[in-house]
Amino acid sequence: MPDTATPDSTTPSGPAAYVPTERTVPTRSKARASYDRETVHSILDEAYLCHLGFVRDGAPVVLPTLFGRVGESLYIHGSTGSRPLRATSQGDPGLAVCLTVTHVDGLVLARSAFHHSMNYRSVVVHGTARTVTDPQERRIALDAIVDQVVAGRSKDSRPADAKELAATAVIRLDLDEVSAKIRTGGPNDDPEDLALPYWAGVVPLAPGYGAPVPSDDLDPAVQVPDYLRAL
Amino acid sequence: MPDTATPDSTTPSGPAAYVPTERTVPTRSKARASYDRETVHSILDEAYLCHLGFVRDGAPVVLPTLFGRVGESLYIHGSTGSRPLRATSQGDPGLAVCLTVTHVDGLVLARSAFHHSMNYRSVVVHGTARTVTDPQERRIALDAIVDQVVAGRSKDSRPADAKELAATAVIRLDLDEVSAKIRTGGPNDDPEDLALPYWAGVVPLAPGYGAPVPSDDLDPAVQVPDYLRAL
Repeated sequence: MPDTATPDSTTPSGPAAYVPTERTVPTRSKARASYDRETVHSILDEAYLCHLGFVRDGAPVVLPTLFGRVGESLYIHGSTGSRPLRATSQGDPGLAVCLTVTHVDGLVLARSAFHHSMNYRSVVVHGTARTVTDPQERRIALDAIVDQVVAGRSKDSRPADAKELAATAVIRLDLDEVSAKIRTGGPNDDPEDLALPYWAGVVPLAPGYGAPVPSDDLDPAVQVPDYLRAL
Repeated sequence: MPDTATPDSTTPSGPAAYVPTERTVPTRSKARASYDRETVHSILDEAYLCHLGFVRDGAPVVLPTLFGRVGESLYIHGSTGSRPLRATSQGDPGLAVCLTVTHVDGLVLARSAFHHSMNYRSVVVHGTARTVTDPQERRIALDAIVDQVVAGRSKDSRPADAKELAATAVIRLDLDEVSAKIRTGGPNDDPEDLALPYWAGVVPLAPGYGAPVPSDDLDPAVQVPDYLRAL
Protein backbone atom coordinates (compact mmCIF):
# COMPACT_ATOMS: atom_id res chain seq x y z
CA MET A 1 0.00 0.00 0.00
CA PRO A 2 1.58 3.30 -1.00
CA ASP A 3 2.48 5.91 1.57
CA THR A 4 0.08 8.34 -0.02
CA ALA A 5 -2.90 6.46 1.31
CA THR A 6 -1.71 6.16 4.87
CA PRO A 7 -1.64 9.74 6.28
CA ASP A 8 -4.74 10.77 8.13
CA SER A 9 -6.49 13.61 6.34
CA THR A 10 -5.92 15.83 9.36
CA THR A 11 -2.16 15.29 9.24
CA PRO A 12 -0.39 17.73 6.93
CA SER A 13 2.16 15.98 4.74
CA GLY A 14 4.81 17.75 2.72
CA PRO A 15 5.14 21.49 2.22
CA ALA A 16 2.27 23.89 2.84
CA ALA A 17 1.69 24.54 -0.85
CA TYR A 18 1.63 22.69 -4.15
CA VAL A 19 4.23 23.74 -6.70
CA PRO A 20 2.64 25.73 -9.54
CA THR A 21 3.24 24.37 -13.03
CA GLU A 22 2.66 25.80 -16.48
CA ARG A 23 -0.81 24.30 -16.63
CA THR A 24 -1.88 25.20 -13.10
CA VAL A 25 -1.09 28.91 -13.53
CA PRO A 26 -4.18 30.50 -15.09
CA THR A 27 -3.88 32.83 -18.05
CA ARG A 28 -6.57 35.05 -16.50
CA SER A 29 -7.33 36.32 -12.98
CA LYS A 30 -4.04 35.04 -11.57
CA ALA A 31 -4.81 36.66 -8.20
CA ARG A 32 -7.70 34.21 -7.75
CA ALA A 33 -5.39 31.18 -7.94
CA SER A 34 -4.16 29.41 -4.82
CA TYR A 35 -1.75 26.53 -4.30
CA ASP A 36 -2.23 26.36 -0.54
CA ARG A 37 -2.65 22.76 0.55
CA GLU A 38 -5.21 23.44 3.28
CA THR A 39 -7.28 25.57 0.93
CA VAL A 40 -7.28 22.83 -1.69
CA HIS A 41 -8.17 20.17 0.89
CA SER A 42 -11.03 22.22 2.33
CA ILE A 43 -12.58 22.79 -1.10
CA LEU A 44 -12.28 19.10 -1.93
CA ASP A 45 -13.64 17.97 1.44
CA GLU A 46 -16.78 20.07 1.09
CA ALA A 47 -17.61 18.19 -2.12
CA TYR A 48 -18.36 14.62 -3.08
CA LEU A 49 -19.04 15.12 -6.77
CA CYS A 50 -16.31 15.88 -9.27
CA HIS A 51 -16.18 16.16 -13.03
CA LEU A 52 -13.57 13.80 -14.42
CA GLY A 53 -12.05 14.52 -17.83
CA PHE A 54 -10.09 12.12 -19.95
CA VAL A 55 -9.27 11.67 -23.62
CA ARG A 56 -10.89 8.94 -25.68
CA ASP A 57 -10.02 8.49 -29.37
CA GLY A 58 -8.44 11.94 -29.27
CA ALA A 59 -11.57 13.70 -28.01
CA PRO A 60 -12.34 14.97 -24.51
CA VAL A 61 -14.90 13.24 -22.28
CA VAL A 62 -16.22 14.79 -19.04
CA LEU A 63 -18.27 12.65 -16.66
CA PRO A 64 -19.70 13.44 -13.22
CA THR A 65 -18.61 10.98 -10.56
CA LEU A 66 -18.15 10.61 -6.82
CA PHE A 67 -14.71 10.83 -5.25
CA GLY A 68 -13.10 10.47 -1.85
CA ARG A 69 -9.94 12.08 -0.47
CA VAL A 70 -7.46 10.25 1.74
CA GLY A 71 -4.44 12.41 2.54
CA GLU A 72 -2.83 13.37 -0.76
CA SER A 73 -4.80 10.92 -2.89
CA LEU A 74 -8.21 11.10 -4.52
CA TYR A 75 -10.10 7.90 -5.20
CA ILE A 76 -12.82 7.18 -7.75
CA HIS A 77 -14.73 3.95 -8.08
CA GLY A 78 -16.94 2.42 -10.66
CA SER A 79 -17.90 -0.73 -12.41
CA THR A 80 -15.00 -2.72 -13.78
CA GLY A 81 -16.83 -2.34 -17.10
CA SER A 82 -16.91 1.46 -17.22
CA ARG A 83 -14.79 3.17 -19.83
CA PRO A 84 -12.42 5.37 -17.79
CA LEU A 85 -11.86 2.68 -15.17
CA ARG A 86 -11.10 0.09 -17.80
CA ALA A 87 -8.63 2.42 -19.47
CA THR A 88 -6.47 2.80 -16.36
CA SER A 89 -5.73 -0.88 -16.27
CA GLN A 90 -4.72 -1.20 -19.90
CA GLY A 91 -1.03 -1.21 -19.07
CA ASP A 92 1.44 0.79 -17.01
CA PRO A 93 0.93 4.31 -18.38
CA GLY A 94 -2.36 4.82 -16.55
CA LEU A 95 -4.91 7.35 -17.77
CA ALA A 96 -4.24 11.08 -18.08
CA VAL A 97 -7.10 12.83 -16.31
CA CYS A 98 -8.23 16.23 -15.12
CA LEU A 99 -10.45 16.18 -12.04
CA THR A 100 -12.40 19.34 -11.25
CA VAL A 101 -14.51 20.25 -8.22
CA THR A 102 -16.61 23.43 -8.16
CA HIS A 103 -18.70 25.12 -5.48
CA VAL A 104 -20.85 28.09 -6.53
CA ASP A 105 -21.25 30.38 -3.51
CA GLY A 106 -23.09 33.28 -5.04
CA LEU A 107 -24.45 34.99 -8.14
CA VAL A 108 -22.72 38.34 -8.61
CA LEU A 109 -25.00 40.86 -10.31
CA ALA A 110 -23.38 44.05 -11.55
CA ARG A 111 -24.99 47.11 -13.14
CA SER A 112 -23.24 46.17 -16.40
CA ALA A 113 -23.86 42.81 -18.07
CA PHE A 114 -20.09 42.61 -18.65
CA HIS A 115 -19.22 42.58 -14.94
CA HIS A 116 -21.68 39.87 -13.97
CA SER A 117 -19.81 37.05 -12.28
CA MET A 118 -19.97 34.16 -9.81
CA ASN A 119 -18.49 33.70 -6.39
CA TYR A 120 -17.01 30.24 -6.48
CA ARG A 121 -14.31 27.92 -5.18
CA SER A 122 -12.87 25.36 -7.55
CA VAL A 123 -10.02 22.87 -7.57
CA VAL A 124 -8.44 21.45 -10.70
CA VAL A 125 -6.18 18.40 -10.44
CA HIS A 126 -4.06 17.22 -13.36
CA GLY A 127 -2.36 13.87 -13.35
CA THR A 128 -2.38 10.20 -14.15
CA ALA A 129 -4.99 7.91 -12.64
CA ARG A 130 -3.94 4.36 -11.86
CA THR A 131 -5.86 1.26 -10.88
CA VAL A 132 -5.63 0.38 -7.19
CA THR A 133 -5.06 -3.32 -6.62
CA ASP A 134 -3.96 -3.53 -2.97
CA PRO A 135 -6.96 -4.96 -1.05
CA GLN A 136 -6.42 -2.80 2.05
CA GLU A 137 -6.06 0.40 0.02
CA ARG A 138 -9.18 -0.51 -1.95
CA ARG A 139 -11.17 -0.88 1.31
CA ILE A 140 -9.90 2.46 2.59
CA ALA A 141 -10.77 4.10 -0.73
CA LEU A 142 -14.31 2.71 -0.85
CA ASP A 143 -14.98 3.81 2.74
CA ALA A 144 -13.62 7.26 1.91
CA ILE A 145 -15.94 7.62 -1.08
CA VAL A 146 -19.00 6.76 1.04
CA ASP A 147 -17.88 9.00 3.91
CA GLN A 148 -17.18 11.90 1.53
CA VAL A 149 -20.93 11.93 0.73
CA VAL A 150 -22.12 11.49 4.32
CA ALA A 151 -19.46 11.57 7.04
CA GLY A 152 -19.74 8.50 9.24
CA ARG A 153 -21.88 6.47 6.87
CA SER A 154 -19.33 3.78 5.93
CA LYS A 155 -19.38 2.42 9.49
CA ASP A 156 -23.19 2.32 9.45
CA SER A 157 -23.69 0.13 6.37
CA ARG A 158 -22.76 -3.36 5.24
CA PRO A 159 -19.22 -3.39 3.78
CA ALA A 160 -18.70 -4.76 0.29
CA ASP A 161 -18.41 -8.54 0.09
CA ALA A 162 -15.96 -10.43 -2.12
CA LYS A 163 -18.30 -10.51 -5.11
CA GLU A 164 -19.05 -6.79 -4.90
CA LEU A 165 -15.35 -5.98 -4.50
CA ALA A 166 -14.56 -8.02 -7.60
CA ALA A 167 -17.09 -5.98 -9.60
CA THR A 168 -15.67 -2.65 -8.42
CA ALA A 169 -12.71 -0.87 -9.94
CA VAL A 170 -10.90 1.78 -7.89
CA ILE A 171 -8.54 4.33 -9.37
CA ARG A 172 -6.24 6.79 -7.60
CA LEU A 173 -5.12 10.26 -8.59
CA ASP A 174 -2.45 11.83 -6.40
CA LEU A 175 -2.61 15.51 -5.45
CA ASP A 176 0.52 16.87 -7.04
CA GLU A 177 -0.28 19.20 -9.93
CA VAL A 178 -3.14 21.07 -8.29
CA SER A 179 -4.59 24.55 -8.05
CA ALA A 180 -7.58 26.21 -6.45
CA LYS A 181 -9.37 29.25 -7.81
CA ILE A 182 -11.56 31.43 -5.63
CA ARG A 183 -13.70 34.49 -6.22
CA THR A 184 -15.37 36.32 -3.34
CA GLY A 185 -16.96 39.72 -2.82
CA GLY A 186 -19.39 41.97 -4.63
CA PRO A 187 -19.61 43.19 -8.20
CA ASN A 188 -16.75 45.23 -9.70
CA ASP A 189 -18.74 47.81 -11.61
CA ASP A 190 -16.99 50.64 -13.43
CA PRO A 191 -17.23 53.97 -11.53
CA GLU A 192 -19.32 55.55 -14.29
CA ASP A 193 -21.94 52.79 -13.92
CA LEU A 194 -22.56 53.14 -10.18
CA ALA A 195 -25.49 55.52 -10.58
CA LEU A 196 -27.34 53.32 -13.07
CA PRO A 197 -30.78 52.27 -11.79
CA TYR A 198 -30.03 48.53 -11.75
CA TRP A 199 -29.91 46.40 -8.61
CA ALA A 200 -26.36 45.23 -7.85
CA GLY A 201 -25.08 42.80 -5.29
CA VAL A 202 -24.75 39.11 -4.54
CA VAL A 203 -27.35 36.35 -4.31
CA PRO A 204 -25.83 33.78 -1.92
CA LEU A 205 -26.15 30.10 -2.75
CA ALA A 206 -25.86 27.12 -0.48
CA PRO A 207 -26.71 23.45 -0.90
CA GLY A 208 -30.05 22.66 0.70
CA TYR A 209 -30.73 19.28 2.26
CA GLY A 210 -34.33 18.15 2.60
CA ALA A 211 -35.65 15.87 5.31
CA PRO A 212 -34.45 12.28 4.81
CA VAL A 213 -37.07 10.10 3.08
CA PRO A 214 -36.95 6.51 4.36
CA SER A 215 -37.31 3.57 1.99
CA ASP A 216 -40.80 2.08 1.84
CA ASP A 217 -39.35 -1.19 3.05
CA LEU A 218 -37.37 0.28 5.96
CA ASP A 219 -38.04 -1.28 9.34
CA PRO A 220 -39.91 1.48 11.25
CA ALA A 221 -37.73 0.73 14.27
CA VAL A 222 -34.67 2.12 12.44
CA GLN A 223 -34.31 5.77 13.41
CA VAL A 224 -32.75 8.55 11.30
CA PRO A 225 -29.08 8.46 12.37
CA ASP A 226 -27.37 11.47 13.92
CA TYR A 227 -24.99 11.90 10.97
CA LEU A 228 -28.01 12.59 8.76
CA ARG A 229 -29.62 14.96 11.23
CA ALA A 230 -26.35 16.92 11.19
CA LEU A 231 -26.56 17.70 7.45
CA MET B 1 -26.34 34.36 -38.38
CA PRO B 2 -26.89 30.60 -38.47
CA ASP B 3 -30.35 29.10 -38.26
CA THR B 4 -29.40 27.30 -35.09
CA ALA B 5 -29.44 30.52 -33.12
CA THR B 6 -32.79 31.78 -34.33
CA PRO B 7 -35.42 29.36 -32.97
CA ASP B 8 -37.03 30.40 -29.77
CA SER B 9 -36.22 27.95 -27.02
CA THR B 10 -39.90 27.10 -26.68
CA THR B 11 -40.14 26.11 -30.35
CA PRO B 12 -39.17 22.50 -30.96
CA SER B 13 -36.91 22.13 -33.95
CA GLY B 14 -36.13 18.86 -35.65
CA PRO B 15 -37.13 15.43 -34.43
CA ALA B 16 -38.15 14.77 -30.83
CA ALA B 17 -34.92 12.96 -29.99
CA TYR B 18 -31.20 13.20 -30.66
CA VAL B 19 -29.67 10.32 -32.57
CA PRO B 20 -27.57 8.09 -30.28
CA THR B 21 -23.95 7.60 -31.33
CA GLU B 22 -21.25 5.23 -30.19
CA ARG B 23 -20.02 7.74 -27.62
CA THR B 24 -23.44 8.81 -26.32
CA VAL B 25 -24.54 5.24 -25.53
CA PRO B 26 -23.22 4.44 -22.05
CA THR B 27 -21.41 1.19 -21.34
CA ARG B 28 -23.27 0.98 -18.02
CA SER B 29 -26.85 1.64 -16.85
CA LYS B 30 -28.17 2.02 -20.39
CA ALA B 31 -31.73 2.32 -19.06
CA ARG B 32 -30.79 5.63 -17.42
CA ALA B 33 -29.83 7.23 -20.74
CA SER B 34 -32.24 9.50 -22.62
CA TYR B 35 -32.00 11.20 -26.00
CA ASP B 36 -35.31 13.03 -25.68
CA ARG B 37 -34.89 16.63 -26.78
CA GLU B 38 -37.24 18.14 -24.19
CA THR B 39 -35.58 16.19 -21.40
CA VAL B 40 -32.15 17.42 -22.49
CA HIS B 41 -33.37 21.00 -22.78
CA SER B 42 -35.01 20.97 -19.35
CA ILE B 43 -31.85 19.68 -17.65
CA LEU B 44 -29.75 22.31 -19.41
CA ASP B 45 -32.20 25.12 -18.67
CA GLU B 46 -32.19 24.42 -14.96
CA ALA B 47 -28.43 24.98 -14.91
CA TYR B 48 -26.08 27.86 -15.67
CA LEU B 49 -22.79 26.20 -14.79
CA CYS B 50 -21.22 23.54 -16.95
CA HIS B 51 -17.91 21.73 -16.91
CA LEU B 52 -16.15 22.16 -20.24
CA GLY B 53 -13.55 19.62 -21.28
CA PHE B 54 -11.00 20.02 -24.04
CA VAL B 55 -7.60 18.59 -24.93
CA ARG B 56 -4.44 20.64 -24.53
CA ASP B 57 -1.05 19.21 -25.46
CA GLY B 58 -2.66 15.77 -25.51
CA ALA B 59 -4.00 15.99 -21.95
CA PRO B 60 -7.56 16.64 -20.77
CA VAL B 61 -8.55 19.94 -19.16
CA VAL B 62 -11.88 20.46 -17.37
CA LEU B 63 -12.95 23.98 -16.38
CA PRO B 64 -16.17 25.25 -14.79
CA THR B 65 -17.83 27.97 -16.82
CA LEU B 66 -21.20 29.61 -17.44
CA PHE B 67 -23.27 28.79 -20.51
CA GLY B 68 -26.49 29.86 -22.16
CA ARG B 69 -28.84 27.89 -24.41
CA VAL B 70 -30.56 29.36 -27.46
CA GLY B 71 -32.54 26.76 -29.35
CA GLU B 72 -30.14 24.02 -30.40
CA SER B 73 -26.97 25.94 -29.56
CA LEU B 74 -25.03 26.41 -26.35
CA TYR B 75 -22.91 29.51 -25.90
CA ILE B 76 -19.91 30.11 -23.68
CA HIS B 77 -18.10 33.38 -23.25
CA GLY B 78 -14.83 34.44 -21.81
CA SER B 79 -11.88 36.73 -22.19
CA THR B 80 -10.34 36.74 -25.63
CA GLY B 81 -7.15 35.77 -23.77
CA SER B 82 -8.46 32.59 -22.15
CA ARG B 83 -7.05 29.29 -23.37
CA PRO B 84 -10.10 27.41 -24.67
CA LEU B 85 -11.59 30.50 -26.30
CA ARG B 86 -8.31 31.31 -28.02
CA ALA B 87 -8.04 27.77 -29.30
CA THR B 88 -11.36 27.89 -31.16
CA SER B 89 -10.19 30.71 -33.37
CA GLN B 90 -6.91 29.11 -34.38
CA GLY B 91 -8.23 28.05 -37.74
CA ASP B 92 -11.23 26.30 -39.22
CA PRO B 93 -11.23 23.00 -37.29
CA GLY B 94 -12.57 24.58 -34.10
CA LEU B 95 -12.03 22.95 -30.74
CA ALA B 96 -13.23 19.45 -29.82
CA VAL B 97 -15.06 19.78 -26.51
CA CYS B 98 -17.24 17.84 -24.13
CA LEU B 99 -19.71 19.96 -22.16
CA THR B 100 -21.31 18.38 -19.10
CA VAL B 101 -24.09 19.64 -16.83
CA THR B 102 -25.02 17.80 -13.63
CA HIS B 103 -27.78 18.26 -11.06
CA VAL B 104 -27.59 16.17 -7.89
CA ASP B 105 -31.15 15.63 -6.64
CA GLY B 106 -30.55 13.27 -3.76
CA LEU B 107 -28.16 11.10 -1.80
CA VAL B 108 -29.25 7.46 -2.01
CA LEU B 109 -28.29 5.52 1.12
CA ALA B 110 -28.59 1.76 0.92
CA ARG B 111 -28.04 -0.84 3.66
CA SER B 112 -24.99 -2.02 1.72
CA ALA B 113 -22.10 0.32 0.95
CA PHE B 114 -22.07 -1.15 -2.57
CA HIS B 115 -25.59 0.07 -3.42
CA HIS B 116 -25.08 3.65 -2.29
CA SER B 117 -25.86 5.98 -5.15
CA MET B 118 -27.00 9.44 -6.18
CA ASN B 119 -30.18 10.65 -7.77
CA TYR B 120 -29.03 12.96 -10.53
CA ARG B 121 -29.79 14.39 -13.93
CA SER B 122 -26.88 15.03 -16.27
CA VAL B 123 -26.36 16.04 -19.88
CA VAL B 124 -23.20 15.36 -21.87
CA VAL B 125 -22.65 17.16 -25.17
CA HIS B 126 -19.87 16.16 -27.55
CA GLY B 127 -18.89 18.35 -30.45
CA THR B 128 -16.78 21.08 -31.93
CA ALA B 129 -16.90 24.57 -30.49
CA ARG B 130 -16.45 27.46 -32.91
CA THR B 131 -15.90 31.16 -32.41
CA VAL B 132 -18.97 33.29 -33.02
CA THR B 133 -18.21 36.41 -35.04
CA ASP B 134 -21.65 37.63 -36.17
CA PRO B 135 -22.41 40.74 -34.05
CA GLN B 136 -26.13 39.98 -33.68
CA GLU B 137 -25.52 36.36 -32.71
CA ARG B 138 -22.88 37.50 -30.18
CA ARG B 139 -25.43 39.87 -28.56
CA ILE B 140 -28.05 37.12 -28.37
CA ALA B 141 -25.49 34.73 -26.90
CA LEU B 142 -24.32 37.17 -24.22
CA ASP B 143 -27.90 37.97 -23.19
CA ALA B 144 -28.65 34.23 -23.03
CA ILE B 145 -25.69 33.59 -20.73
CA VAL B 146 -26.83 36.32 -18.31
CA ASP B 147 -30.47 35.19 -18.46
CA GLN B 148 -29.48 31.55 -17.89
CA VAL B 149 -28.19 32.59 -14.45
CA VAL B 150 -31.12 34.87 -13.58
CA ALA B 151 -34.06 34.90 -16.00
CA GLY B 152 -34.88 38.46 -17.02
CA ARG B 153 -31.62 40.00 -15.85
CA SER B 154 -30.14 40.90 -19.25
CA LYS B 155 -32.88 43.50 -19.81
CA ASP B 156 -32.22 44.99 -16.37
CA SER B 157 -28.51 45.76 -16.76
CA ARG B 158 -26.30 47.86 -19.01
CA PRO B 159 -25.51 45.97 -22.23
CA ALA B 160 -21.89 45.50 -23.22
CA ASP B 161 -20.33 48.46 -25.02
CA ALA B 162 -17.98 48.23 -28.00
CA LYS B 163 -14.85 47.97 -25.86
CA GLU B 164 -16.34 45.24 -23.68
CA LEU B 165 -17.56 43.34 -26.74
CA ALA B 166 -14.08 43.49 -28.24
CA ALA B 167 -12.63 41.93 -25.09
CA THR B 168 -15.18 39.10 -25.06
CA ALA B 169 -14.91 35.88 -27.01
CA VAL B 170 -18.05 33.82 -27.62
CA ILE B 171 -18.02 30.22 -28.74
CA ARG B 172 -20.90 28.01 -29.85
CA LEU B 173 -21.48 24.30 -29.45
CA ASP B 174 -24.47 22.87 -31.30
CA LEU B 175 -26.70 20.26 -29.69
CA ASP B 176 -26.22 17.31 -31.98
CA GLU B 177 -24.33 14.50 -30.26
CA VAL B 178 -26.09 14.66 -26.90
CA SER B 179 -27.38 12.41 -24.18
CA ALA B 180 -29.00 12.79 -20.79
CA LYS B 181 -28.63 10.38 -17.91
CA ILE B 182 -31.10 10.27 -15.05
CA ARG B 183 -31.38 8.28 -11.83
CA THR B 184 -34.44 8.54 -9.60
CA GLY B 185 -35.93 6.52 -6.78
CA GLY B 186 -34.75 4.81 -3.64
CA PRO B 187 -31.91 2.41 -2.90
CA ASN B 188 -31.75 -0.96 -4.67
CA ASP B 189 -30.68 -3.15 -1.80
CA ASP B 190 -30.33 -6.87 -2.24
CA PRO B 191 -33.27 -8.81 -0.69
CA GLU B 192 -31.02 -10.46 1.89
CA ASP B 193 -29.92 -7.02 3.18
CA LEU B 194 -33.39 -5.57 3.83
CA ALA B 195 -33.46 -6.65 7.48
CA LEU B 196 -30.07 -5.12 8.32
CA PRO B 197 -30.32 -2.44 11.03
CA TYR B 198 -29.07 0.43 8.83
CA TRP B 199 -31.16 3.42 7.81
CA ALA B 200 -31.96 3.39 4.09
CA GLY B 201 -33.59 5.98 1.91
CA VAL B 202 -32.95 9.24 0.11
CA VAL B 203 -31.71 12.60 1.37
CA PRO B 204 -33.18 15.14 -1.09
CA LEU B 205 -30.97 17.99 -2.27
CA ALA B 206 -31.99 21.30 -3.76
CA PRO B 207 -30.09 24.51 -4.46
CA GLY B 208 -30.76 27.06 -1.75
CA TYR B 209 -30.81 30.77 -2.52
CA GLY B 210 -30.13 33.19 0.32
CA ALA B 211 -31.58 36.69 0.58
CA PRO B 212 -29.94 39.02 -1.98
CA VAL B 213 -27.14 41.14 -0.44
CA PRO B 214 -27.01 44.60 -2.03
CA SER B 215 -23.66 46.23 -2.87
CA ASP B 216 -22.44 48.73 -0.27
CA ASP B 217 -22.55 51.41 -2.94
CA LEU B 218 -26.07 50.60 -4.18
CA ASP B 219 -28.48 53.52 -4.24
CA PRO B 220 -30.97 52.67 -1.43
CA ALA B 221 -33.79 53.72 -3.75
CA VAL B 222 -33.11 50.68 -5.97
CA GLN B 223 -35.40 47.87 -4.84
CA VAL B 224 -34.75 44.13 -5.13
CA PRO B 225 -36.25 43.26 -8.53
CA ASP B 226 -39.08 40.74 -8.88
CA TYR B 227 -36.91 38.29 -10.86
CA LEU B 228 -34.66 37.95 -7.78
CA ARG B 229 -37.58 37.56 -5.37
CA ALA B 230 -38.78 34.71 -7.59
CA LEU B 231 -35.63 32.63 -7.05
